[in-house]
Amino acid sequence: MTARAPAAAPPAEATTGRDAILRAARRAFTQRPYAEVTIRGVAADAGVSASLVVKHFGRKEELFNTVADFGPAADELFDAPPDRLGRHMVLTLVHRRRERQTDPLLRVVFSLGNHDERSLLRDRFQAQVTGRLAALLPGPDADLRAELIAGQLLGLGATLSLHRTGAGALATPEHLADLYAPALQKLVTG
Amino acid sequence: MTARAPAAAPPAEATTGRDAILRAARRAFTQRPYAEVTIRGVAADAGVSASLVVKHFGRKEELFNTVADFGPAADELFDAPPDRLGRHMVLTLVHRRRERQTDPLLRVVFSLGNHDERSLLRDRFQAQVTGRLAALLPGPDADLRAELIAGQLLGLGATLSLHRTGAGALATPEHLADLYAPALQKLVTG
Repeated sequence: MTARAPAAAPPAEATTGRDAILRAARRAFTQRPYAEVTIRGVAADAGVSASLVVKHFGRKEELFNTVADFGPAADELFDAPPDRLGRHMVLTLVHRRRERQTDPLLRVVFSLGNHDERSLLRDRFQAQVTGRLAALLPGPDADLRAELIAGQLLGLGATLSLHRTGAGALATPEHLADLYAPALQKLVTG
Repeated sequence: MTARAPAAAPPAEATTGRDAILRAARRAFTQRPYAEVTIRGVAADAGVSASLVVKHFGRKEELFNTVADFGPAADELFDAPPDRLGRHMVLTLVHRRRERQTDPLLRVVFSLGNHDERSLLRDRFQAQVTGRLAALLPGPDADLRAELIAGQLLGLGATLSLHRTGAGALATPEHLADLYAPALQKLVTG
C-alpha cells in the first residue's frame, strides 16, 4: 500500500479566483495611488464580484496589506548566515519564481511607473527588505550596500521576466548562482 | 571679456511640453498594449493638444520609436573596451540619471506590469541592449551573461529610483562604481 502525498495546493477552481484577485490587486496597487484603488475596480479587473474579493481578502486595507507584504519573502531570502547569504538569495529567488510563477520582490518596481512622490508599497519594501537587510550586514556603508543588494535581486527578477524564453530561463538555479551570487556575496561581506 | 557658455538646452517652455509628452508616452507604451495607445490619450495625459504631440513626434509609430529606442543609451553605456566596461557602465548610468532626471533603461521594466505575451518594447530592449551586449562579450555563456549584466543595470536603476532619498542618492558615482562595478566586470570578463 502506497501512502499518497498530501495535496500540495487547494483545488484549481478555488485558487483561480484567488489568484486572479491577487494579480488584479497587484496591478491596481502598484500602478495607481492608494486612494484611487477600489475593491470594485479590482473585482472587475479580476472578473469576479466585489463580495468575493472581500470574502477572500477583507476590505481594501487588508487587501493592500496582503499585496504589499514583503515579510514572508524576506524571511526566506535572508534565512542564511552572512558568509553564505549571496548564494542563498539567488537560489531562493530563482526557486520561488519557478515554483510559484511569480517574483517575490519585483512588483515594487511597477510602483515606479506612477509618479507619486510617495508610495505605500515602496515604504513597505524599504522597511521589510532594504532596512532589514542593512541590519544584517557587517562593516561600513551597510545602508548603501543593502540598497545595492536589493537592486541586484530586483535586477535578477527583472531580467528573468524580460527574457522569458532566453538563456536565463534555460539555466539551472545553480548555474545562475555560480554567475550571479559572487557579486551579491561581495556586497554582503563588505 | 568673458566668453559665455553656449546654452545647454532649449528654453524651459519648449522643453516642458515636449518632456510632458515624452513622459506620458512612456507611461502609455509601457503600461498598455501598443494597439490600445492613442495619440489623443497621450495628449490628454500630458495636458496638451493632440496636434502638438504630432508636431513634436509625428504619428503613433514615430512616437513609439522615440520612446522605445534604447540605441542611444546603449551607444553610451557600451562605449568602453571590455576590460573597463563594468566601471564605465555604472558611471555612465549614474551620470545619465542625475543629469537627465531619467533612467536610460528602466522604462522597459514597467512593461512587465501588463501581462501581454509579447511586447514591442521588450523586443527592442532585447535586440538593442541584451543582444548587442552579448555580441561584445568574450568567452562562454555570452547570452546568459548579457542577460545578467542587463539585470544588474536595471537593478541599479531600480534601487536608485526606489530609494530616492537613500544612501545611493547621497553616494558619489565613483563610490557607487567601487561597490557595484566589480560584479559587472566579472560578468563581462567571463
